[in-house]
Amino acid sequence: MLIVQKYGGTSVADIDRIKAVAGCVVKTVKEGHKVVVVVSAMAGETDKLINLAHQVSSNPSEREMDLLLSSGERVTSALTAMAIEELGHKAMALTGRQMGIYTDAVHTKARIEKITTERAKKALDEGYIIVVAGFQGVTEAEDVTTLGRGGSDLSAVAIASALNADLCEIYTDVDGVYTADPNIVPGARKLDKISYEEMLELASLGAKVLQTRSVEFAIKYEVPVVVRSSFSDNPGTLVTKEDEDMENVVVSGAAYDKNQAKITVMGVPDKPGIAAKLFKGIADANIVVDMIVQNISSDGKATDISFTVPKTDSKKTLKLTEGIVKELEARGVALREDIAKVSIVGVGMRTHSGVAAEMFDTLAKHGINIIAISTSEIKVSCLIDVKYAELAVRILHDAFELSTDFAKRI
Amino acid sequence: MLIVQKYGGTSVADIDRIKAVAGCVVKTVKEGHKVVVVVSAMAGETDKLINLAHQVSSNPSEREMDLLLSSGERVTSALTAMAIEELGHKAMALTGRQMGIYTDAVHTKARIEKITTERAKKALDEGYIIVVAGFQGVTEAEDVTTLGRGGSDLSAVAIASALNADLCEIYTDVDGVYTADPNIVPGARKLDKISYEEMLELASLGAKVLQTRSVEFAIKYEVPVVVRSSFSDNPGTLVTKEDEDMENVVVSGAAYDKNQAKITVMGVPDKPGIAAKLFKGIADANIVVDMIVQNISSDGKATDISFTVPKTDSKKTLKLTEGIVKELEARGVALREDIAKVSIVGVGMRTHSGVAAEMFDTLAKHGINIIAISTSEIKVSCLIDVKYAELAVRILHDAFELSTDFAKRI
Repeated sequence: MLIVQKYGGTSVADIDRIKAVAGCVVKTVKEGHKVVVVVSAMAGETDKLINLAHQVSSNPSEREMDLLLSSGERVTSALTAMAIEELGHKAMALTGRQMGIYTDAVHTKARIEKITTERAKKALDEGYIIVVAGFQGVTEAEDVTTLGRGGSDLSAVAIASALNADLCEIYTDVDGVYTADPNIVPGARKLDKISYEEMLELASLGAKVLQTRSVEFAIKYEVPVVVRSSFSDNPGTLVTKEDEDMENVVVSGAAYDKNQAKITVMGVPDKPGIAAKLFKGIADANIVVDMIVQNISSDGKATDISFTVPKTDSKKTLKLTEGIVKELEARGVALREDIAKVSIVGVGMRTHSGVAAEMFDTLAKHGINIIAISTSEIKVSCLIDVKYAELAVRILHDAFELSTDFAKRI
Repeated sequence: MLIVQKYGGTSVADIDRIKAVAGCVVKTVKEGHKVVVVVSAMAGETDKLINLAHQVSSNPSEREMDLLLSSGERVTSALTAMAIEELGHKAMALTGRQMGIYTDAVHTKARIEKITTERAKKALDEGYIIVVAGFQGVTEAEDVTTLGRGGSDLSAVAIASALNADLCEIYTDVDGVYTADPNIVPGARKLDKISYEEMLELASLGAKVLQTRSVEFAIKYEVPVVVRSSFSDNPGTLVTKEDEDMENVVVSGAAYDKNQAKITVMGVPDKPGIAAKLFKGIADANIVVDMIVQNISSDGKATDISFTVPKTDSKKTLKLTEGIVKELEARGVALREDIAKVSIVGVGMRTHSGVAAEMFDTLAKHGINIIAISTSEIKVSCLIDVKYAELAVRILHDAFELSTDFAKRI
């Protein structure tokens, strides 16, 4: 088999961990597989570099930021290749560029456009274990880009897809995907298997196991992904296409996301084209809007539009929105950051009714007010006061009996 | 004018120093010049990375070592560009590759083969201050290379030559080139001007002001270089073509080099082709041999050949030489590392006799034994016991009255 193994920051946190990773890679090779390794920066390195940038500049250029941050993964890839060679196996470190990862020019969150695999394939044929610096790519104009936080997951899945790998293993510091964050919900249970779609919803909820875009990529190209721990031999969780079993499980997991901010545009004239104008401006700035709620205007003249964006983009979005407010003839803009989005996810929701109602009821019973609601086929999310985030996940986990394996639940 | 400014590791040692460098660059721009900045890694970074490499591997691959080490300069170039932008000027960081620095594939000490300047010229035309990551280049096969210790000097001089710059300023932590190391000789005097050739001899002697190969490059392409301090406004030392003034100065400086090891091949049959065979093997391994001394064989049958190589290459050379010994039918090989090369340098030697004799006499008067001698047109070097290195420089500095400006000496 050709296996892509991705090791995150905690898995390569120091020299001993890097040696352990080398051992794990060599073990896989000895089992008869070819391996492409994708590594993150050593834990803390990226934050250290961001901190340096903010010390020299109040508003660092994103192009230079990418050049800066990409160095962390380059260091780890070189060290990991050396550690593998020390164990007597041929290894070759490749930068994002050398791996042929071409992206658009949206610095700090570039999208992969194509991967040219000639060099990697040649190296694999020559018996090298390849160690790719994750998180980074290059534009056609030869500028270094990065793929956004957690971008090494995307590197791994995209490389697995481009090389037609049989499996993409994401090694991290948890041993799989849980029904909820075990730090918050002591009874959280590890799942053996989860569908891409559920994983996508959980990832976008801030269950920090897999980066959202890497899951989107895995869906699109049907890359089988396993999430497992580099600190244990636990088999992990397989993220794969939905099968019949999964549909029986109504709710697979509960999670919250504290990384959203809510912006409300007040007193917007209730006429066509307003929302389009507002959200086009935000989309043009490459800001991802999550929930959008438009309240019904009672007098038919003006309405409030609320929406959520990642907290990191909140200031930029506020400024942008304030700029458009006059044009929209709206009354004003308000930003609220003390919020959390709590959600339940499960492919079985499609065929089971009453799930949303049970969620609202559970929150109400515990006096948690719902600020906004959004739903998808397999998810129900409620925006609540941030102080209730942990409590909400715990009571939902209980309410939907997630601690118990589904087979035993029915 | 187009000025290339190179800032070494101590000049960009921390955030405050990087900000100071940005200020210095902007000051030059405000004086009406275009500026290309070349930066080293922050002081200590390269050693830190080398140390990490040796922790994971007893013999790290040189290709991966280059990838690892090149990250230090990339970090500084990005941070410096950000710091310049913070002062309100357009800046663009360029990696070695983006600067178009193509090298051969001799990792860890690659030679520059060509520099493609399109991108840099375009950026300069668009009003950018360019900040280049020093010390690094790229091969035609897209592998990252480094130019050896002090390689950022070479980057700067080569870029100055390729861009036809009017001046190349090397900013360091000393304010110019001295008649001797002021830490060893309290009376050492800063020179206003020095010829390329003298600088070359001093650089190769371990006067750590300018990297040897950067001086060779400056000679070849006649790049005017100024060595000056980034910590003061002192005008520094101009390194330039020899002029008539200079010829009047017999000795310009005295220095030692402790970075050499002596290898002696004993009992070599005295027949043609032996030396060629020996030194070809060493040259093929890209090891630079400095002094070569062959003792006259009294019986006409066997002789000893001694030569010096950089200490970093001594083990490798010893192994190589031991391999050739049988083939040479020699008796054995010995390595001696407790030696220093002490030298006096000056273009005036060409037209003044007795300089070498005075040097030998001075050393003899202080009981310092000479192990080997080598001379060039403008230099006399003696190999001595390392424990006398500092003493030798001090007494030679005195003997040739280097503390006194030449104009006052005659």
